[in-house]
Formats: sequence, structure tokens, C-alpha cells
Amino acid sequence: MSSSVHLACTLVPQTCSTFTHSKEVKSPTHSIFNQWRGRLPTQFNQPKFLSGIIVKERALKIPFFTAAKAHVIEGEKENDSSYSETTPPFDLKTYMRQKGNSVNRALEEAVPLRSPEALYEPMRYSLFAGGKRVRPLLCISACELVGGNEATAMPSACAAEMIHTMSLMHDDLPYMDDDDLRRGKPTAHKAFGETAAVLSGDVMLLLAFEHVAAATPGAPPDRVARAVGELARAAGRDGLVAGQIVDVCSEGSGEVGLERLEYIHLHKTAALLEGAVVAGGMLGGGTEEEIGRLRRFARCIGLLFQVVDDILDVTKSSTELGKTAGKDVAAEKVTYPKMLGLEGSRELAEELRKEAKEQLMGFDPEKAMPLVALTDFIACRNN
Amino acid sequence: MSSSVHLACTLVPQTCSTFTHSKEVKSPTHSIFNQWRGRLPTQFNQPKFLSGIIVKERALKIPFFTAAKAHVIEGEKENDSSYSETTPPFDLKTYMRQKGNSVNRALEEAVPLRSPEALYEPMRYSLFAGGKRVRPLLCISACELVGGNEATAMPSACAAEMIHTMSLMHDDLPYMDDDDLRRGKPTAHKAFGETAAVLSGDVMLLLAFEHVAAATPGAPPDRVARAVGELARAAGRDGLVAGQIVDVCSEGSGEVGLERLEYIHLHKTAALLEGAVVAGGMLGGGTEEEIGRLRRFARCIGLLFQVVDDILDVTKSSTELGKTAGKDVAAEKVTYPKMLGLEGSRELAEELRKEAKEQLMGFDPEKAMPLVALTDFIACRNN
Repeated sequence: MSSSVHLACTLVPQTCSTFTHSKEVKSPTHSIFNQWRGRLPTQFNQPKFLSGIIVKERALKIPFFTAAKAHVIEGEKENDSSYSETTPPFDLKTYMRQKGNSVNRALEEAVPLRSPEALYEPMRYSLFAGGKRVRPLLCISACELVGGNEATAMPSACAAEMIHTMSLMHDDLPYMDDDDLRRGKPTAHKAFGETAAVLSGDVMLLLAFEHVAAATPGAPPDRVARAVGELARAAGRDGLVAGQIVDVCSEGSGEVGLERLEYIHLHKTAALLEGAVVAGGMLGGGTEEEIGRLRRFARCIGLLFQVVDDILDVTKSSTELGKTAGKDVAAEKVTYPKMLGLEGSRELAEELRKEAKEQLMGFDPEKAMPLVALTDFIACRNN
Repeated sequence: MSSSVHLACTLVPQTCSTFTHSKEVKSPTHSIFNQWRGRLPTQFNQPKFLSGIIVKERALKIPFFTAAKAHVIEGEKENDSSYSETTPPFDLKTYMRQKGNSVNRALEEAVPLRSPEALYEPMRYSLFAGGKRVRPLLCISACELVGGNEATAMPSACAAEMIHTMSLMHDDLPYMDDDDLRRGKPTAHKAFGETAAVLSGDVMLLLAFEHVAAATPGAPPDRVARAVGELARAAGRDGLVAGQIVDVCSEGSGEVGLERLEYIHLHKTAALLEGAVVAGGMLGGGTEEEIGRLRRFARCIGLLFQVVDDILDVTKSSTELGKTAGKDVAAEKVTYPKMLGLEGSRELAEELRKEAKEQLMGFDPEKAMPLVALTDFIACRNN
């Protein structure tokens, strides 16, 4: 596969730990990674205290870590009157189902089956193949967190999902990740051919921006323009596609260190999560300080997402995953388990989860609950 | 090639002659095409009067039609005091060179060489391989026509060129148009591999929208958002990519009629020209009526562009064209010469040129000169 890429892929070192556009926002993982350089992995096995709040363990239906389970914050019983002993735990499952249904309805409206079917069928096939709608949920939750509402965020939420989906359609192509399976079904190019997969991906990308620009109700146009710019940056040259090309260039290379691995995952995974969260925050009218915290939060969960992904690729079967398992190993891709070992990767994941939640501490706790719970979900998922 | 497309490509008949989003703006070519159905092609050989204005022939340095030459409007000497006998003819060559240089400087700034080079080198290679910058010029001219300025239009002008360039990068891929040559050089996938061609194309598309959203000076945000929506629509599901998929589906098919040919060209070529023109008009503050006329103008020149393209593919060599000649015939593509004959196609081109200019009649004649001259240039070009 790398034989089809004729250029050596070089990195400017200072881009490895920060997004080049946000010089004031250093990668939150920079400090975490510094602790890891040269450190031996340790067994993760104990519940942890988070910033003085007593954490009660509660099992989700799909536990991942044998020891780590989803944590639901019960509150500082002594000091914080905004919590009471009777505050019910946050029902993430219902939240995800309800918001997911809203997102699916909106996607159905945005991408109906129409002419030319050769474009719309592959788009819809890929969009409605399943998926947890994590990016749309993050966008909506972030918008509501800063005082906005679901309707305002929805077109951008859909756009984030469209961008994510088209990137998978292109990633799966034979001369890239060469995947036959995605979300348990044949990939788009296997079902419809490479031409349709490339062009449908292109059109879905365009549709994402058309949709945000044309269909965002209740937000001032400057916020809409900012959201467009944010999503475009996050998906493009400082984000998703940049991570993908460096990832492809790095396959089979024995020289990839922790910095390059961080670059790949910050760009390939975290960037679009960040774009979704920040676009939501912008549309909801967040201050620059709030948007900064949302940005850092998103980078943590983005890296967390990928660390867990790498771990699942090693520990789960294709059926459980819904995509081809063991591919990273087979393709000699650099992964966290390969760099840090399995237990070391699990410990890193827990550190990232902790830091993500710290970024949410300054917000209204009740409005922050979905994002806190989503963080735990990302950490504990099984596929 | 069509064997890689697994779906039959059906068209809803009413989409053939209009853009589905603009029900109020029927295709200007609808009436022109109705004259052509069943009509025998005639020899085009005489200069024509345009709406009562006496047209003086003037040769460009690269004449195409042996009889048709670039026309420069000298004005209605009896009635129109805005013209005088001493009004110098419009120097399109200098205009194109000056504006082209401005566009190239802006593109250099928007797409510098930076990390990761594996993305930026193919982008720059394709962007700076030549090209007349017709779409940026149209965007800038339309903006200035309605009272705006070059600086405001420039990011969208660059975006139109980026979108156009990325569509070529993807179009040239082996399982699509399978071109080895473009603008006289190896195509992007031949130079850098398919992975880089696909991903660089994706990132250039994203960069186009990031650029418009983040870098448009002096325009109210609502106009910026509208311009984004217009470009996204024009390039996507109601435009360029839609035309491309229908074109691919139609190859080798014996059943393509004039309606499908019109659909393909209105979408594959005219749509992005329309997007560039209309985005420019929106950013410059044009009224809805002015934007409607600009839209119709653009559709005429878009179709004109393709009619001439089809004619050149039959009549010119690869060296003269700067791309692989004779490919349409070899690929059994449906073209205007194939449907109407060579002389019939030339006559159709002249009709389209005439109608395009009629749409510009209501504007300030001096401000309209670049677009009038560009229309003639499109009609008379050699490559």
C-alpha cells in the first residue's frame, strides 16, 4: 500500500504535539506523554479519585476494562449544594438513543433518496449503516452546554457525521486502508465500486457544508461562518486528512515514535471530534475561554477514542468490532499497544479520561453531565 | 470503467433541463435545445448582430472558429451616451493576465508548501500546473459587476479554483476518466500515487471552504455563509459531482439522448461556473434579480464551455490541448459533435454565446465588459 505513495512523509517537529492553528492551546496530552516517555507500563486496576469528588463505580451494559467501569459522579456531599443525595445518575443510554434518533431523522431529511441514485445510494448506505453518532452528540451537547439548543446545532451535528462517514468511505479504499468490512457490512467500494465510493464521498463532504450554511436556524451568520471554518479546518489540512496521509506514510516504517503516533491520532481522530465540539460551542454562543476548554476536552477524548480503538483492535474479534479486526497488526501500523504495551495503553486511557473531565469542571454540572458520561462511554466501549 | 459502477444511473426527467434547487430559473438552454431537436445542423460562417448593437469583429491571438472571432462591443452609436466612438476595445488578454496573477498570488498564500508535504505537494502540483483561472476571474468580475471589489471576492475565487482542481484530480483516477495527462503534465495520481491524489483532493476541497469562511474581508457574514452554500451546492449533489457520476454511468451506453447530455454538461461544467459567478454576485451585494441574471448567464457559458470542449477534443491534438485528445471518442462518451455533428455543435455554441451576452445587457456596460469578453474567449479558445 505504501508503495503507492511516492513521497516521503516528513513532519515538522513542532506540529507533533499541537495543532498548528491554535498556538495558544498546547496539546493536553503533551504533559501526559512526557510522563510516559521511558516509563514502564503498570497494571491499571483500581478506582480513582477525581479532583476531590468521590467516584462511584457503575457498570454499563458493555464494560470494557475488567476493572474500569463507567463512572457516575455523585458529587461532593459536604460542599456542593447543587448536588443532593437524591440526584439520579445520568442515563446515558437513553440520552444517546433519543439524541441519536433526532440525528437520524435530521440525516434522513438532509440526505433523502433522490436522483442521481448512483450518488445517493452509497451515501445513504454508508450513513445509515449504524454508528453511535458520537460526533453529532458531542456537537449538540457542547452547544447546549454553553446555552444553545439542539435545533441550532443539528445541521453542524449532521455535517460532522457526514464528514466522518465520507472519510471512512475513502479510507476503506483498496489503496488506503483496504477494508472489506465496516460496521459489520461490506464497505462502500465493495458494495458499489470505487468510482461511486470516491464520488459519493466527495458529494457528502460538499453536502455537509451546504447543509450548515443553508440550514442553521437561530444562529447569527457570523457563528455559522465560524462553524463552517472550524469543521473545514478540523476535517482538512490541520486535521483528519492530514492525520490520514501521515498514517498511510508511516505504515511498515520502523521509525515511528510516540510523537508521530500522537500526531496521527490527534489529527486523524481527535481533530474532527474537536471540530464537532467547538462548532457546537460556537453556535451556542460560548465565550473564547469556554471554547478553549471545550477544545482541550475534545483533544483528550479524541486521543482516548483512538487509544481504546487500538486496544480493541488487539483484543476483540471482527464480529464484536463490526469491522476487520487485527488489521493494524497485519498492516504493521504503529499503535499504542505496540508502543506502550496493553496495560500501559489502558493506563494512558484512564489518564486521558481524567483530564477530559477536568476540562468540564468549570461548566454547569447538570449541563455537563452528557459530556462527562460520553467520556466514560468512549473509554469503556466495546466496538 | 463502467463495470466498476454497480448501479444503473437513472435520471428523473424533470431534472434534465433545470437545476433542481432553483425551480424559478429554468435552464436557458431549454429553449435553445428545443430548436435543435430534429433540426439539421447548418454551417456557421457569418458575423451576427446582437440585439441591435453593431458588433465589430476583432481577432484574438488564438482564434478558434475560422469565421467566428472575439467580438468587442462598440456600442449603439445613436442612442447610448455611455459609449463614445473613442471607447477603446476591452483588452481581455491584459485583464486575464493581471487578474490571473492576483489569483495566483492569493493561491500561493492560501496553499503554501508546508507539512505534511505528502498533502501539499500534490495540491500545489495540480493547482499550479497552469490553467486560465476562468472560474476565479468569473467570480471576481461578477463581484465587481454588482458593486463589490476584488479583495472581497478573492477567497471565493480561490475556492472555486480549488474545487475545480480537486475535481480534476479525482476525475483523472484510473477507474474514472483514467487520464495520464492534464494541462500537459502527468496527472496527480501518476505523479504521486492514487492515495495522495484522493486525499489531496479531499483536503483541497476542505481548504476551499475553510478559506472562504475564515478569510473573506469586507463582506457581511450572511453573504459569506450564502457564498459557502452556493459553492457547496454548485460543486456537489446538484452540480459538478452529480454530473460526473451520470457521465460515468453513461459511458458506452447507446441510450443517451440530448436531455441527458444537457444534464451532464449543466452539472459537470456549468454548475461550478455558475457557483463562482453567483458567489461573486452575492459577496458583492447583488440584488436577487441581478443574481438571477448572473445565474442564467453562467449556465449559458457553462454549456458553451463544454460544447467547445467537445469540439476541441475532436479537432485538436494532445499537444495543442494540453491533455489527452480523442479520449471522448475512444471512451464512447456522448458528445455534442456526436449528437449534432461538428457544424451543428458550432452553431449551438454561437447561440449560447448570444444568449449569455443578452443576460448581461441590464448591467453597467463598462463593468460588464470583462464578462462579455470572457464569453467570447470561452467560445473562441483553442484548449
